[in-house]
Amino acid sequence: MTADWERQIYLSMTDMEEAVNSFLERILPCRETLGEEWIPVQKSRGRVLSRPVLARTSSPRYNAAAMDGIMVVAEKTYPASEARPVLLERGRDFEYVNTGQVIREPYDSVIMIEDLALPGEVPVSGGVGDAPQVIVRVPASPWQHIRPMGEDLVTGEMILPAHHRIRPRDMGALMSGGWTELPVLQQISVGIMPTGSEIIDSWEAWEPGKIMDTNSWTLQAMAEEAGYPACRIPPVPDNVEALKLALLELLEEHHLVVINAGSSAGSRDFTAAAIRELGEVALHGIAIKPGKPTILGMVKGKPVIGVPGYPGSAYLVFEEVVLPILRFMSCQPPQEQRPRADAVLSRRVISSLKHREYVRVTLGKVGDKLIATPLDRGAGGTMSLVRADGLLVIPRNFEGIEAGAEVEIQLLQELSAVENTLVSIGSHDLLMDHIASQMKGYRLSSAHVGSMGGVMALMRGEAHLAPIHLLDEATGTYNRETLRRYLDGKAFLLKGVRRAQGLMVAPGNPKGIRGLEDLIRQDISFVNRQRGSGTRVLTDYLMGQRGMKAQDIRGYDREMTTHTAVAAAVAGGTADAGVGVYSAARSMGLEFLLIGYEEYDFAVAEALRDSPMLEAFRRVLDSPEFRQLLQELGGYER
Amino acid sequence: MTADWERQIYLSMTDMEEAVNSFLERILPCRETLGEEWIPVQKSRGRVLSRPVLARTSSPRYNAAAMDGIMVVAEKTYPASEARPVLLERGRDFEYVNTGQVIREPYDSVIMIEDLALPGEVPVSGGVGDAPQVIVRVPASPWQHIRPMGEDLVTGEMILPAHHRIRPRDMGALMSGGWTELPVLQQISVGIMPTGSEIIDSWEAWEPGKIMDTNSWTLQAMAEEAGYPACRIPPVPDNVEALKLALLELLEEHHLVVINAGSSAGSRDFTAAAIRELGEVALHGIAIKPGKPTILGMVKGKPVIGVPGYPGSAYLVFEEVVLPILRFMSCQPPQEQRPRADAVLSRRVISSLKHREYVRVTLGKVGDKLIATPLDRGAGGTMSLVRADGLLVIPRNFEGIEAGAEVEIQLLQELSAVENTLVSIGSHDLLMDHIASQMKGYRLSSAHVGSMGGVMALMRGEAHLAPIHLLDEATGTYNRETLRRYLDGKAFLLKGVRRAQGLMVAPGNPKGIRGLEDLIRQDISFVNRQRGSGTRVLTDYLMGQRGMKAQDIRGYDREMTTHTAVAAAVAGGTADAGVGVYSAARSMGLEFLLIGYEEYDFAVAEALRDSPMLEAFRRVLDSPEFRQLLQELGGYER
Repeated sequence: MTADWERQIYLSMTDMEEAVNSFLERILPCRETLGEEWIPVQKSRGRVLSRPVLARTSSPRYNAAAMDGIMVVAEKTYPASEARPVLLERGRDFEYVNTGQVIREPYDSVIMIEDLALPGEVPVSGGVGDAPQVIVRVPASPWQHIRPMGEDLVTGEMILPAHHRIRPRDMGALMSGGWTELPVLQQISVGIMPTGSEIIDSWEAWEPGKIMDTNSWTLQAMAEEAGYPACRIPPVPDNVEALKLALLELLEEHHLVVINAGSSAGSRDFTAAAIRELGEVALHGIAIKPGKPTILGMVKGKPVIGVPGYPGSAYLVFEEVVLPILRFMSCQPPQEQRPRADAVLSRRVISSLKHREYVRVTLGKVGDKLIATPLDRGAGGTMSLVRADGLLVIPRNFEGIEAGAEVEIQLLQELSAVENTLVSIGSHDLLMDHIASQMKGYRLSSAHVGSMGGVMALMRGEAHLAPIHLLDEATGTYNRETLRRYLDGKAFLLKGVRRAQGLMVAPGNPKGIRGLEDLIRQDISFVNRQRGSGTRVLTDYLMGQRGMKAQDIRGYDREMTTHTAVAAAVAGGTADAGVGVYSAARSMGLEFLLIGYEEYDFAVAEALRDSPMLEAFRRVLDSPEFRQLLQELGGYER
Repeated sequence: MTADWERQIYLSMTDMEEAVNSFLERILPCRETLGEEWIPVQKSRGRVLSRPVLARTSSPRYNAAAMDGIMVVAEKTYPASEARPVLLERGRDFEYVNTGQVIREPYDSVIMIEDLALPGEVPVSGGVGDAPQVIVRVPASPWQHIRPMGEDLVTGEMILPAHHRIRPRDMGALMSGGWTELPVLQQISVGIMPTGSEIIDSWEAWEPGKIMDTNSWTLQAMAEEAGYPACRIPPVPDNVEALKLALLELLEEHHLVVINAGSSAGSRDFTAAAIRELGEVALHGIAIKPGKPTILGMVKGKPVIGVPGYPGSAYLVFEEVVLPILRFMSCQPPQEQRPRADAVLSRRVISSLKHREYVRVTLGKVGDKLIATPLDRGAGGTMSLVRADGLLVIPRNFEGIEAGAEVEIQLLQELSAVENTLVSIGSHDLLMDHIASQMKGYRLSSAHVGSMGGVMALMRGEAHLAPIHLLDEATGTYNRETLRRYLDGKAFLLKGVRRAQGLMVAPGNPKGIRGLEDLIRQDISFVNRQRGSGTRVLTDYLMGQRGMKAQDIRGYDREMTTHTAVAAAVAGGTADAGVGVYSAARSMGLEFLLIGYEEYDFAVAEALRDSPMLEAFRRVLDSPEFRQLLQELGGYER
């Protein structure tokens, strides 16, 4: 069942390019009325010329020596040869001249100092600049080694056209052409307005239900990185009058205002109301995901953009909608497309027919294949923005893309950094983060899909290594059997750590849980790990030993993909117990009831055996700092 | 003959990578002693983390609604179906909740507002947030539409590793993870010291022989663009004691000092002397061109780099030598290689065996070929830095590359800008600059090789259009015959302007020149245009009519490739007369003696006939502004 307001949105949902282009037409007057100012050339980097700049003076302004040497009248050297050198006398036939110095009448040629000799075969070195007589063995031609006046720039010649954005390498020509101040367009300035009564401005003000404002700072930094000065005000509460007041104030000082959040069409749609009451909502709803509830509006002849509140949405809408508008307003050409690369998709992605979807991915180079792994698509997360190496764009009217498909990725990260990334797919442990931070010269990317997920990624050639802790129930040994069975000849085992697994329970163990046996109690809710994870295998093994059954346990079906997610569920009170490692329990302040030790090792692709990347990884494992870390974290042995 | 000091240099001439890498090893201590400082996250864009940053708090800090709707106990909705909806009562069975709000005990599930109905089939719209009862038709599952505590970040999880350079998109996670101030490395600060007694700081101080300092500003802007604060001091005269004093002062405040010029091994090698007296010259001379006389030195444990004085050299050495050192010092990975593209070389390039040579080129897309045209290689010019779209790198031990060869270009310009460039090769006229500055949405690149050079470029498929003014002596007509003979079916003629050609002479006509006839006078020196230029054809035609011979004219062999270069030669006093157009004479303040009118038209490749790029060009020609410009410049008709 679809509510009225939602039907209304979907009816008006516009393709992004169409939405942006028709909006650009509307804001053409903003561009045409943009002011001009004069600034010193020295401070003009990144500024946009308001008109063509022609040379005011020639450069050089005179005929100049292009070499250190002597200036001569070329004709006097015409008789010179190896056999019959010509002797020249200072003051009468030549003068010394350094690079850049003026060639005076009647001189019309320069001979380089290294082509001169002193009378009597004295070799020329340093002292030549004082000799009253020199010998020339090769005739000089007129105008040799002379930079003629105007060689670089001639008065009236265009140095740069209007609307050119000044680069450092333009400054030399601008200054040589006689300019000290330049006519440039006013900078487009951006006002940024976070909104929401639940939004707070510092952690000191935090209480449950309050959310720290992080978006507006990210957007400010994005604007500034693109060269647009931006000013962010403190969060404005959800109140149409307050929003209107703040908006009008920002519009006084800025060329464009971004309102963050309040743009969803939910029960709190104050942003659209404020824009509508002061001006006009040109469009509400763009067919992209994330970013659907974007608002394009005009107030007092200036663009006002409503950007959704989730970090992933805010980032994408700023990149795809706000930046093109800013570039247009500052007379810059449309932004360059992101660099692209072909990759193999490591996991299936499902998409909605209604939107163009932007899926953040991490990238890794395994063998000669670039592997793209979709990140968690919850728009609420901030870490997937940190981790994203690229974007997979799925057009409208596509249902999704299968695993193994060849896809084009828009890069957010340099490919060379991707190539220096050790791709780990498998079981999660906090240690992987610490190893990552110690790997000199290389990145370590960790995807957490459980031990068997890692083994399968290695089999498909999509990972360099897989952290695993897989118990073979028949032999009671860890990892070796799995390697033999699935990865024989394809991967080898690198010993990792022994680690403690246990039940994590709330501080003080309020439910008095004594061990696994208690999980069947009706007053206890459990949080599980996903199938294929080593922890799940261990849990099921130990439950089997005790004759316990899945259906007896509340929450057995609630699956998390990391130790820390399990710990967080317990710490958050949504479960009374979960199985995981000691370090995860400790980091969330939980109690830990030991159930056993296991071996957390690394299955490594054969191709990596002698690679410097693996060497860097091994070096961390073998370092004294790592041993000390294990001690500090507790629950590990190596 | 090679002087001692030069031999010495060539002996020690080191390959660039070797030079830089061995220097990096020496400055390792600078990196290891780099200080740490704490700065607000909000101001951390571009800064480099000094240590790993782990989450100090989980995010979300509590179980939070992921949608606007109601929070319920999932179990109570299990019986719901289309046929038998479940009625829920506010306060007893549910509470309204907005995205981000806390999920309170005992609730464990969120139902979206659009999945609710009101009793009695009242449609849900806006007002639902107040209804005391709602109807649910689909069972809710536990934890649906809830962001569990720690979903994004769990306490202790690594957000970013040490030495990561903060991007705007990192800020959300850093702030969500509880950080308000961050530990970052001190910024590497660069001192820039222009040198040379002939170097001046402002045009007011100019007199012949003085050179305006432009390099140090360019270098400062380059450092700042790369994220390194830079401070430039006024030029220091050529005096070892003055240099030492200034260097020591800069080293007090900066991590690295760049000394511009004085690094050549000529008679004024003060920079190396100053470095040697205060510290050590590690290396003098790198096997690249431009950039050969680069100095790598150490003073007081800090790197001091001597960068050559020519603008082209200074730019290249800063990019290839100084920036890698700065990145190393700030713990950043080696810089990304420039993007590359394959192109066809339009002119032969000769190179020295002794150096790796960096040739600046302009690029144009003609048909499906990218055409690279080498720019003037005089390192003294600033305009070739402005015009460069890319670099052609010719390795050591190569003699050069032939025209027509397929080469790899390192791009300095976005390829999309190159693709929107109308490539004009042919005869020069100042009008081309004005047209360039008026072309909306497109660039116009003009190479000046004379009319016949342009016709040949069109024949080879290397130009979009060729400005030509070629007289057919048999018919007395312009351009049509040339097109018929060389470009039949390949190009069409776009009418340009009629323009006056004449003799340019010094103001006041001091030699009393009356016309072409006077050029045979022994007291008159002439400056000619190159063979194949329309002006040369006209000159030779008119001389032939008058029975004049080339050998009778002093300077007939001195060839310039543009009207303005001819004008500059006359204005600079190195010639008494030259042939050219009125606008060139006027821009240099010369007198103009009319010798005739000619037709300056455009031969346009057939493939361009209906292109929007040509349309933009035509629109400029037909504009009232262009007509007015012709009037203002004088000597043109259209």
